[in-house]
Amino acid sequence: MKAFMDADFLLSTPTAVRLYHDYAAKMPIIDYHCHVSPKEIYEDTHFDNITQVWLGGDHYKWRVMRSNGVDEYYITGGASDREKFQKFAEALPRAIGNPMYHWCHLELKAFFGYEGALNGDTAEEVWNLANRILQQENMGVRGLIEQSNVCFIGTTDDPADSLEWHKKLSEDPAMKTKVAPSFRPDKALNIEKAGWHEYLQRLGEAAGTSITTIETLKSVLADRIALFDAHGCRASDHGLDRISLQFVSDAEVQTIMDKALGGEAVTADEADAFRTHLLLFCAREYARLGWAMQLHFNALRNPNTQMFEKLGPDTGFDCIGPYNGITDLAKLLDTLQLTDELPRTILYSLDPSDNAALAVILGAFQGTEAAGKLQHGSAWWFNDNKQGMHDQLVNLANLSLLGNFIGMLTDSRSFLSYTRHEYFRRILCDLIGTWIENGEYPADMDYAGTLVQDISFNNAKRYFGI
Amino acid sequence: MKAFMDADFLLSTPTAVRLYHDYAAKMPIIDYHCHVSPKEIYEDTHFDNITQVWLGGDHYKWRVMRSNGVDEYYITGGASDREKFQKFAEALPRAIGNPMYHWCHLELKAFFGYEGALNGDTAEEVWNLANRILQQENMGVRGLIEQSNVCFIGTTDDPADSLEWHKKLSEDPAMKTKVAPSFRPDKALNIEKAGWHEYLQRLGEAAGTSITTIETLKSVLADRIALFDAHGCRASDHGLDRISLQFVSDAEVQTIMDKALGGEAVTADEADAFRTHLLLFCAREYARLGWAMQLHFNALRNPNTQMFEKLGPDTGFDCIGPYNGITDLAKLLDTLQLTDELPRTILYSLDPSDNAALAVILGAFQGTEAAGKLQHGSAWWFNDNKQGMHDQLVNLANLSLLGNFIGMLTDSRSFLSYTRHEYFRRILCDLIGTWIENGEYPADMDYAGTLVQDISFNNAKRYFGI
Amino acid sequence: MKAFMDADFLLSTPTAVRLYHDYAAKMPIIDYHCHVSPKEIYEDTHFDNITQVWLGGDHYKWRVMRSNGVDEYYITGGASDREKFQKFAEALPRAIGNPMYHWCHLELKAFFGYEGALNGDTAEEVWNLANRILQQENMGVRGLIEQSNVCFIGTTDDPADSLEWHKKLSEDPAMKTKVAPSFRPDKALNIEKAGWHEYLQRLGEAAGTSITTIETLKSVLADRIALFDAHGCRASDHGLDRISLQFVSDAEVQTIMDKALGGEAVTADEADAFRTHLLLFCAREYARLGWAMQLHFNALRNPNTQMFEKLGPDTGFDCIGPYNGITDLAKLLDTLQLTDELPRTILYSLDPSDNAALAVILGAFQGTEAAGKLQHGSAWWFNDNKQGMHDQLVNLANLSLLGNFIGMLTDSRSFLSYTRHEYFRRILCDLIGTWIENGEYPADMDYAGTLVQDISFNNAKRYFGI
Repeated sequence: MKAFMDADFLLSTPTAVRLYHDYAAKMPIIDYHCHVSPKEIYEDTHFDNITQVWLGGDHYKWRVMRSNGVDEYYITGGASDREKFQKFAEALPRAIGNPMYHWCHLELKAFFGYEGALNGDTAEEVWNLANRILQQENMGVRGLIEQSNVCFIGTTDDPADSLEWHKKLSEDPAMKTKVAPSFRPDKALNIEKAGWHEYLQRLGEAAGTSITTIETLKSVLADRIALFDAHGCRASDHGLDRISLQFVSDAEVQTIMDKALGGEAVTADEADAFRTHLLLFCAREYARLGWAMQLHFNALRNPNTQMFEKLGPDTGFDCIGPYNGITDLAKLLDTLQLTDELPRTILYSLDPSDNAALAVILGAFQGTEAAGKLQHGSAWWFNDNKQGMHDQLVNLANLSLLGNFIGMLTDSRSFLSYTRHEYFRRILCDLIGTWIENGEYPADMDYAGTLVQDISFNNAKRYFGI
Repeated sequence: MKAFMDADFLLSTPTAVRLYHDYAAKMPIIDYHCHVSPKEIYEDTHFDNITQVWLGGDHYKWRVMRSNGVDEYYITGGASDREKFQKFAEALPRAIGNPMYHWCHLELKAFFGYEGALNGDTAEEVWNLANRILQQENMGVRGLIEQSNVCFIGTTDDPADSLEWHKKLSEDPAMKTKVAPSFRPDKALNIEKAGWHEYLQRLGEAAGTSITTIETLKSVLADRIALFDAHGCRASDHGLDRISLQFVSDAEVQTIMDKALGGEAVTADEADAFRTHLLLFCAREYARLGWAMQLHFNALRNPNTQMFEKLGPDTGFDCIGPYNGITDLAKLLDTLQLTDELPRTILYSLDPSDNAALAVILGAFQGTEAAGKLQHGSAWWFNDNKQGMHDQLVNLANLSLLGNFIGMLTDSRSFLSYTRHEYFRRILCDLIGTWIENGEYPADMDYAGTLVQDISFNNAKRYFGI
Repeated sequence: MKAFMDADFLLSTPTAVRLYHDYAAKMPIIDYHCHVSPKEIYEDTHFDNITQVWLGGDHYKWRVMRSNGVDEYYITGGASDREKFQKFAEALPRAIGNPMYHWCHLELKAFFGYEGALNGDTAEEVWNLANRILQQENMGVRGLIEQSNVCFIGTTDDPADSLEWHKKLSEDPAMKTKVAPSFRPDKALNIEKAGWHEYLQRLGEAAGTSITTIETLKSVLADRIALFDAHGCRASDHGLDRISLQFVSDAEVQTIMDKALGGEAVTADEADAFRTHLLLFCAREYARLGWAMQLHFNALRNPNTQMFEKLGPDTGFDCIGPYNGITDLAKLLDTLQLTDELPRTILYSLDPSDNAALAVILGAFQGTEAAGKLQHGSAWWFNDNKQGMHDQLVNLANLSLLGNFIGMLTDSRSFLSYTRHEYFRRILCDLIGTWIENGEYPADMDYAGTLVQDISFNNAKRYFGI
């Protein structure tokens, strides 16, 4: 029996052990997609206690508590930080087999040196230990980034953002990790959603103009893309509930926009037409600049109205929203390819049933700009667990070239999440190690070690031009 | 090499062996969803031969024979019981890897002490052995239940049922196992199906009234729910071909009902509207009484018209009917949650591609009434096999809290099926044992053993308030 | 650690080793579905170099190169054969875990005796070795077939084909392998596709008539089916983008046909109606003659317009096209069953998410003509990899009778692909071996060895009546 989450955690063969410790572990981290705050990085925020840094904004952990029957008072309500920590600690042992169980213990070990198991009985001990260590100078945001060996962070930013914190970070000589914005224009594209009109005004203000025509909107977006590019942006991100396209004339797009600006509700088809038009426009800009376009889809957002009204979005209630958008996705890629304006593209579906179709569609639109120009993104969100990552890797290996995979990202709001890269690398090394031990790939460490280091780091470096 | 289906069957590690034998095996069985007859329990039915108890009503076994090219004469036709048994025995070795192979041998071992392998050559030996043992006094229905250590049986019952056999059972001091009805009002809700009008008359007669309005129908259903509750009912069950909802006004529901009562065909949308209205009504009653609501969906019923006309429903021809109903399911749960009337709910899809989306949607609607108020039901019907159960457990562990899972049920028409709980527990212990052996969970038998016993028994006990 | 792809490749237990070497390996090959050229077989084509025989028409390999960022010049363009081979060899090590990696090395070993690993460094050595061996007399098409122990080849042929090469082959006493045509009438059924009208003229010419009515078309198809039957045909094949049916009157079918013959575009529904009508007609002919009907569906063809215009179809750009056609599939089978005219049928979906539903639907329409009259075809195309084959086998075992499976086919355009049967048999033996070692099936080599030989060869022999 292996000891609980020891140095060889998830490494089931000698070759896996070797691949991980000799090749993967030492590689720096490129976290090209996450949701951390550049302001907090610049200000080197420190935390009073583990609840603040761990439970404060982590809706994964809130789900664990809710699934354990815990009252919202102890989750997002008025309970004390210590009480919240206790409730979470009591729930955790029930989360056997859940990525949260491993993430938590990887983080407790890496950042607080805790080697035991967190539960209701050990909560007090962990609370005291973690809070003591959090007082150390190097346990602010910058210290956490540095000890995690992170060389690049791609945040997620709104086109209306001034990027002031990114500017400050780039001018700070003490900051060794490159922090670049990513361009996420969802609010501009989602014409059917509440707040779109107000958002357009805000975007116009940021750009010093008034946006009333589709041409102005595109011009503003192009300007903001240029601004992001000047601040080192290498990727965009689109959160599409589903890939559902409508192709209409420019005049019709203007009519739809007029309708929405006039306060009228647009139909689902009209919203899709407006979004398609802008998505194609943006994609062409990305292609021109050599950016990667990330498409995240098949999420069902805010299904619990009662809780949405209490807590707002991104509070742990979103679901998988299965939708068969492969034909439309193919049409999107084809439309861009026809004029040689298809950018590097990374596809992420929240529905694991899409995995095979996504890995296959890559092969129909590859190009010479990069090995693996089209990518199936690392197992996203609910799929970001041991089985989900294993399945994504095996699927990708079967249907595309695993060797060109750009690998892991945290997608996280927390500065403790960098251990998810460790988790991924262990799973990767175990998979490749198993293949080698079984005689399915040559036991040539030059090739195998290179593959591991490429997927851990080098591929992303090349792909994004970092 | 392990011996064929020995004491450590499916237990691949020492920890799995320990978890199963020391913790799981001794727990009683709560079979909260099945299709056995309360009349047969009350009357303690005995069986003349193994074909009667084993092949008589088991459409799983009929499918095995049909897939082996066996003529219907030997399946549901006029062949002798001995001939039927022979044909099944000859087919069984071809069913390598099929749950039927394991179920059969678990049952032959547990109830008849047969340790060999059933096939065409051994059929005579097994026929003689089983039939001899079936003559024993303790081999009637009650004896089979008792030796299986079953503490609770939830049958499946029609609202028009008088529950006379449940009443007699509850008054029988010799009956130690609690037998409670479950409320399955499909016939009342399926307005578009043949026989609905006649069923409404039958239901009215049972309730001593005439049902011509939706209000009367709801009132009758409420009364029958109260009657079921008085007889210990803890759960309802809805078999929905697919989750497809329509929300219309009360007046429109009455119009639809009038149409159907007048002999006119209703449209699919009208049927959905009628069903949605009643489903919401029933769900609110269940919530009020603390019942669990079971939703079974994505089945394609009676696709083979020729055989349906010969043999009727539930004869082994039903299929998986994939349907993307997640958005509607979310709307159903949300509608009930909005007024705090969402009952404990257990979701079962016949399509394993739904697993991930279902386990995730649980997390959006949990509550404090129970740890794991929303449940993803145990691998249902065609998924009820080693791989399917493993996948459901891993999926649930990844996306919810496995520790709060209410576990297994037989869904069976046979009193020999209790070994399916053994099968499930072995798979569960092997999974958890593997995690512990791999260092993925602490080797703390207090926690791990408790988890196993909770999933095997305690969670269901608490969840249903048994 | 096992040596790289040695004699016991993929065989992880002693029982697996025994099953493969003592039972599976020696069985001849029935390759009942492939795309090789009967003309090349008759003429015993020889190849100048390995690029010709290996890379010339193999769009699987082209995808590997494109996914490695290789320019089309080195794939389908003007580069030399040696340059193309180099680019492929350089890409191959990145294809870790891909079936291409194993297929390539199985072929290099079986046909050229190469035991190393192909990569950029070894390309020169392999190029020289392979080209030298290709000069041998027995390395023509017939020699490759003979050394692969192939006893039956089912090619894929158009109804308008004269079958002249099949006739010559059947009359050639030197030809020991039976080569039979398969009937693939897609071009006649796809009324909505470009070229349908021209094709009908060509078909009419082949049949010596002019096809302007649906009755004539059916009469011609019936005649061609009879011709194919006379040449030993045992199976048809239908490539349906998706199973989407429309049932209309004969008169309406004629109207749709008139419309298309008049040069008007038909709607999607009209095309489905026309196709449904002919599919049912053909299926009844197949049933009468005891043929098997193969249905291939859920492919998205030619999504990349730019490359389609450059290279045409079947050049490595096709994708998985998920579509929920189970209800229509059930209706198709039911319609034929109602009049006892359902032929042996083999179902293949390109979307692995369909696996469970497909294996289950088999059980609803089995018959006494053959054990396993309805079949779930071997993991098709993108699913034809280690994981995909394993999943198809386990799924089939769970939901039908694995013992009656008709097993593997190459679906290939290359005469080196017969090692895919070896790959399949190793995976099959490993699966069954694992079950036996785990005590899940008796260690009775009579039964287990028979199962392996049946699935490898005997079942297909019986099923097709070879």
